Parts: sequence; structure tokens; C-alpha cells
Amino acid sequence: MPVLVATITPVEGQMDAVESILKDLVPLVHDEEGCELYALHRGRDCFVMVEKWTDGDALRVHGSGPNLQLLNQQLEGLVVGPPGVQVIKAVPAGDAAKGSL
Amino acid sequence: MPVLVATITPVEGQMDAVESILKDLVPLVHDEEGCELYALHRGRDCFVMVEKWTDGDALRVHGSGPNLQLLNQQLEGLVVGPPGVQVIKAVPAGDAAKGSL
Repeated sequence: MPVLVATITPVEGQMDAVESILKDLVPLVHDEEGCELYALHRGRDCFVMVEKWTDGDALRVHGSGPNLQLLNQQLEGLVVGPPGVQVIKAVPAGDAAKGSL
Repeated sequence: MPVLVATITPVEGQMDAVESILKDLVPLVHDEEGCELYALHRGRDCFVMVEKWTDGDALRVHGSGPNLQLLNQQLEGLVVGPPGVQVIKAVPAGDAAKGSL
């Protein structure tokens, strides 16, 4: 079950505009096939989305689907380059409830 | 409830050694006061820890506590610089179960 951490960095002064766009996106992605987790977080100067998908196919469909295409259009000019994306895999350890998303 | 994403990048050839150290650390941190989530993930060339703490005090105690001090000693020479750390805050949106850690 792939996990993904995406970091979106707005240009200066656009944190609130980008947050609004991302908040509108979240419920659309929650309805996508295979979305287990799509959790938006705000940092000091960036947003971090923590995602979990049932399998690699679901993640690929999401990555090339209409919701992300719309997002990329909406973020044009508001963000510093493309998002930083890390596709990662859980390493089980310790207490199962605290050790996995 | 603060969320933290920490990225640990091993020097070349040390992914497995670092994974072993981090796996041993996880159960110790799960037993720390205020640890809600401490989930280890492996990427292509780095590890990503996704953490959630009950409050800022618990996170501060963890950050200066003996488990992290031991970790820093164990990782010496095995990692590229200090971990990348982002302290972030959940932005509620969409389905509560899929929208938060």
C-alpha cells in the first residue's frame, strides 16, 4: 500500500490562496478509487499532503487524473515549482496502531 | 496536535544499516508520553518518519530526550547531515477519516 508525502511551496504571500485551493481539492480526491488517506497539513511556508493509496494502480490513476490536472492549473503562478513528491513504503515496527498510517 | 515529517537520508550503501537502527528506535518512541503516531517509511534513498504528538510539550520533550540522543549517536557517519524536519498542522477538509492522521 503506497504512501506518498507531497510538499507544495507557495510563492510569498500566497499561503492562504493555496490553502483554499487545496481544501477544495481534498474532498474530490477522497472520492477517488483507492484513496485511503489524503490529509492536508500547513507548515510555516509550505503545505504537506500525506497520502495512502490501496495500490500502485490507484496512485497512478490519481496522478494522471482530472483532479490533479485541475489542481495544477489552479496553482499556476501561486507555487514555487512542482511539488516535492516522495513515494514511500511503510516499515512495520513497534505498536501497530502508532507505527502505521 | 502537532504533526511532524522527518526525512533521514543515509549515505550511499547504508540504507539497510539505517533502517535497522530506526526500527529499533520506533518501539522506544511509541512508549514516550504523548506519542500518538511514529510511523517509519522507506523511500528510494531516504527514510520518512510521520509523527503525531498530543501537544507541543510532548514533542519538545521527545526532541531533547534520551531516545533521540541515542539515535543521533548511532546515525553518526551513516547519514547525510541532520534530518529534514517539517513541523506541520492538520487542515481539516473532506472526509474526516481520510483527511487526518
